[in-house]
Amino acid sequence: MTHPLFDKHEATLERALQAIAERGYWSPYPESASPKVYGEGAAEAGRAAFEALRGKPFELDQAGTVGRTGRERSPYGFDLGIDYPKADLDALFAGIAQAHARWRKAGPQAWVGVCLEILERINKSSFLVANAVMHTTGQAFLMAFQAGGPHAQDRGLEAVAYAWDEMRRIPEGALWEKPAGKGEPIRMEKRFRIVPRGVGLVIGCCTFPTWNGYPGLFASLATGNAVVVKPHPGAILPLAISVRIAREVLREAGFDPDVVTLVAHEPGDDVARALAMRPEVRLIDFTGSTANGTWLEQHAKHAQVFTEKAGVNQIVVDSADDLGAVARNVAFSLSLYTGQMCTAPQNIYVPAGGIRTPSGTVPFAEVAAALADGVGKLLADPARAVEVLGAVQNEGVARRIDAARALGTVVLDSRAIAHPSFPGATIRTPLIVKLDAADRDKYLAEWFGPIAFVIATRDTAESLAIARAAAKEHGALTLSLYATDPRVVDEAIDVAEDAGVALSINLTAGVFVNQSAAFSDFHGTGANPAANAALTDAAYVAGRFRVVQHRKHL
Amino acid sequence: MTHPLFDKHEATLERALQAIAERGYWSPYPESASPKVYGEGAAEAGRAAFEALRGKPFELDQAGTVGRTGRERSPYGFDLGIDYPKADLDALFAGIAQAHARWRKAGPQAWVGVCLEILERINKSSFLVANAVMHTTGQAFLMAFQAGGPHAQDRGLEAVAYAWDEMRRIPEGALWEKPAGKGEPIRMEKRFRIVPRGVGLVIGCCTFPTWNGYPGLFASLATGNAVVVKPHPGAILPLAISVRIAREVLREAGFDPDVVTLVAHEPGDDVARALAMRPEVRLIDFTGSTANGTWLEQHAKHAQVFTEKAGVNQIVVDSADDLGAVARNVAFSLSLYTGQMCTAPQNIYVPAGGIRTPSGTVPFAEVAAALADGVGKLLADPARAVEVLGAVQNEGVARRIDAARALGTVVLDSRAIAHPSFPGATIRTPLIVKLDAADRDKYLAEWFGPIAFVIATRDTAESLAIARAAAKEHGALTLSLYATDPRVVDEAIDVAEDAGVALSINLTAGVFVNQSAAFSDFHGTGANPAANAALTDAAYVAGRFRVVQHRKHL
Repeated sequence: MTHPLFDKHEATLERALQAIAERGYWSPYPESASPKVYGEGAAEAGRAAFEALRGKPFELDQAGTVGRTGRERSPYGFDLGIDYPKADLDALFAGIAQAHARWRKAGPQAWVGVCLEILERINKSSFLVANAVMHTTGQAFLMAFQAGGPHAQDRGLEAVAYAWDEMRRIPEGALWEKPAGKGEPIRMEKRFRIVPRGVGLVIGCCTFPTWNGYPGLFASLATGNAVVVKPHPGAILPLAISVRIAREVLREAGFDPDVVTLVAHEPGDDVARALAMRPEVRLIDFTGSTANGTWLEQHAKHAQVFTEKAGVNQIVVDSADDLGAVARNVAFSLSLYTGQMCTAPQNIYVPAGGIRTPSGTVPFAEVAAALADGVGKLLADPARAVEVLGAVQNEGVARRIDAARALGTVVLDSRAIAHPSFPGATIRTPLIVKLDAADRDKYLAEWFGPIAFVIATRDTAESLAIARAAAKEHGALTLSLYATDPRVVDEAIDVAEDAGVALSINLTAGVFVNQSAAFSDFHGTGANPAANAALTDAAYVAGRFRVVQHRKHL
Repeated sequence: MTHPLFDKHEATLERALQAIAERGYWSPYPESASPKVYGEGAAEAGRAAFEALRGKPFELDQAGTVGRTGRERSPYGFDLGIDYPKADLDALFAGIAQAHARWRKAGPQAWVGVCLEILERINKSSFLVANAVMHTTGQAFLMAFQAGGPHAQDRGLEAVAYAWDEMRRIPEGALWEKPAGKGEPIRMEKRFRIVPRGVGLVIGCCTFPTWNGYPGLFASLATGNAVVVKPHPGAILPLAISVRIAREVLREAGFDPDVVTLVAHEPGDDVARALAMRPEVRLIDFTGSTANGTWLEQHAKHAQVFTEKAGVNQIVVDSADDLGAVARNVAFSLSLYTGQMCTAPQNIYVPAGGIRTPSGTVPFAEVAAALADGVGKLLADPARAVEVLGAVQNEGVARRIDAARALGTVVLDSRAIAHPSFPGATIRTPLIVKLDAADRDKYLAEWFGPIAFVIATRDTAESLAIARAAAKEHGALTLSLYATDPRVVDEAIDVAEDAGVALSINLTAGVFVNQSAAFSDFHGTGANPAANAALTDAAYVAGRFRVVQHRKHL
């Protein structure tokens, strides 16, 4: 059963399959926002398309619409003024059931072909999506373009490739021929049909709505499920645009567009839980707080629940060839998008007696000062600083900075910066606070935002012991090590493998611990409390479909 | 990282990988109990080995032993008189943790190589295991040999093959080389390490301890986990023998044998739940009652739980070319091992107006009579009957037959048969009761044992509608259809795919609906309440390990 959209994108799919087998560098969606890549005027057109959406109803002709909802505000200081369809869930799910009847039987090639076409269309809308991401998450424009556009699309394609890789391994049929001694063998014809689980629910976050949303959306859709997308009330637009594109492609391919629907809502209601408890929902992809993620894991037992929750990311500093390079690298990781990344480091463990460098032991205080200095230099020029920091997504981040200031000795205070173009934006530089290893109650929790602790430990062995226990008990997506001694590196690898956390070693050049590249880096491991799944591996997709067989004698 | 046991069995593994890709007929473990296959005297030696175990302590030198437990009784009417180590769980898990430290780092080739060697050794002990299965489950000898021996080993190997197929797709490392405009590309070296989840717990059942136990045991072990095997108190010996063989192989391969341990116990305690709630346990494979399986799914949230529970298996009779052949086939399915199979049919839907045959419409009553007649003929000779029926595993089955008798009009009554060799055995023939479609409260529950209902429906459309709803709400592992009209066959396929149940069409020759062949038939789908997983697919193995990466600049 071939499908024209599958044929159209088969070369891309084949290359993606090679990429996930090798996990080297690859991306089909250019991360350069240059006109040479995306075409003259593409940036301007995307910006204009965004402006055209502002202050108007966002139209989606989906089932069960009973009103309007949504009141997003740009972290850059203005209301978007966009509202979205408000759904009556019973009527919506009735429409989904109707739409799903045909989709569920279309088969893997149609599912995957449609997904690949959606991704290509989303890629062509990267500048529109970038503006939407920027003005909901607060990311600076270039980051919103890259992380919210091509990098998110990469993650979506990666999920489609894994889904196809699992589905293609199920033969469509088999001849079962069992020898029967001297008699005729027993012959049966068997058919194996891939069937979806039901409805997949994607619960988006307010910082990376597309990057964290696309994997679940495309993993579920590519395996024949219908998908309901419930964005965070603060970041609806990027996913609403994505859903609209998905619906266009579905309609053009002859499917009822209610296979993919949006449930927008405003803060403070219980729509997420009501959706999660719908019996039709059999897959849930969630990114957000530990409280909400754990609630889903405990209550939505009829569904397979994939969660990415809070964690405590850590850096262990043992020794360094070039402390300045370490400080520059760490400074960028702390500053990028104001530390509002699930991969941003928080706890930096440094031996109280200092660290070894080629020019001798550098005392703890100097290491802390070097880190502060790195941040200071990176953000010295306000015009450059705002392009690294972006804007504070919500007041909770700003309040948390104030609370963290009181925890210990401030090594580097957080400053407010004015944005040259957006006077209403809240922009904050990182706060660095010195703590002691004994202050566990202070640093063994996630302080989401630009908040870092430089923690004095007895030695690197204690640093690693704390890091191991923290990752195991509180979760972690990233662990970073600076060490020149190969034995220390081996010990850290051992800790990482035991605690189930990805380790970056001696990052001093153009890669940062918070970056995770699709097709190469597994984002999350599923092996500690920060996430119960990885983006993306077979375990992330294999349970999204089932195989139902029938057999008869030949 | 090659391993001698991996090399030794690589050809078998390669052939198994081909088998799961094609899902045609294949088995490396001969199902023939002939001396030509297993060697002269093998049967006698296996019997002698079983007799030698009787009335003695079963020795296992595992950690945490604090006494003895176990009091199995053969369904053929005698006590086995064997006791097993009783475990102190804290001490046992301390031993497991110590043993696991080295095993978890051994890597996929060692894990898989050790598993393949264990399976080969178990295969060589097939006659011993057959006697143990016979005298715990009540299966007749040949079935105990085939289903408890080679077929169970097939299922174990299938799980190892799927596990390897997933693990081999994770590259050991990658060179990540990202172009950087005109400058030097950014180069990183990445390593991807497969790490197990922790301890896998296998909770066995009393009817197919090895067939249902090996998949979870080998899926978890082949992915680097330690495994605790908790047999049903009524069927400890087959798994105890298997555990002892696993420990021998582990020890010979240089590993601490406490990687695989046995927790035997007697009925009525809470060992299963205590084990399931151990934080070390991250994988649970359960076969048994819906009550216990659901309890695990609801409570063991720290673990991935695979369950096979109760279900209502069904036969839809629409029309037939040869009613006698239908009756013979169904009679065998109802009688085999006294209906004590999770795949045995229970509800037989027949239109009240009768069914079409080449010789005209056969009225409902005659269809029911033909089915009864089929059973009667199959079991007319007591000596042959006991080899089909085996013995009743537990009193619950016998009590259930008595209770079912009162539900409606008895079409065929259950009879007691005396076993020529085992006077103490309880042997019962199938009971067939006539019900009406309206008697849903009677037939929409599992009546485990040799209990069948012939249910009069309005027409085949109603039969299929009931079958669909029953499978979706109450679960089902098998659905069987007899129909000569291709349109009815297509409708039944549609029902099966919607309800997530495997369908067998017009079985009249040497295959029976209760049979499920490893490497070809998926046993269970995971798509209805009878089981949340299938034996075996990628979803069954992919979550049993995680990938932890580290990366550094080159």
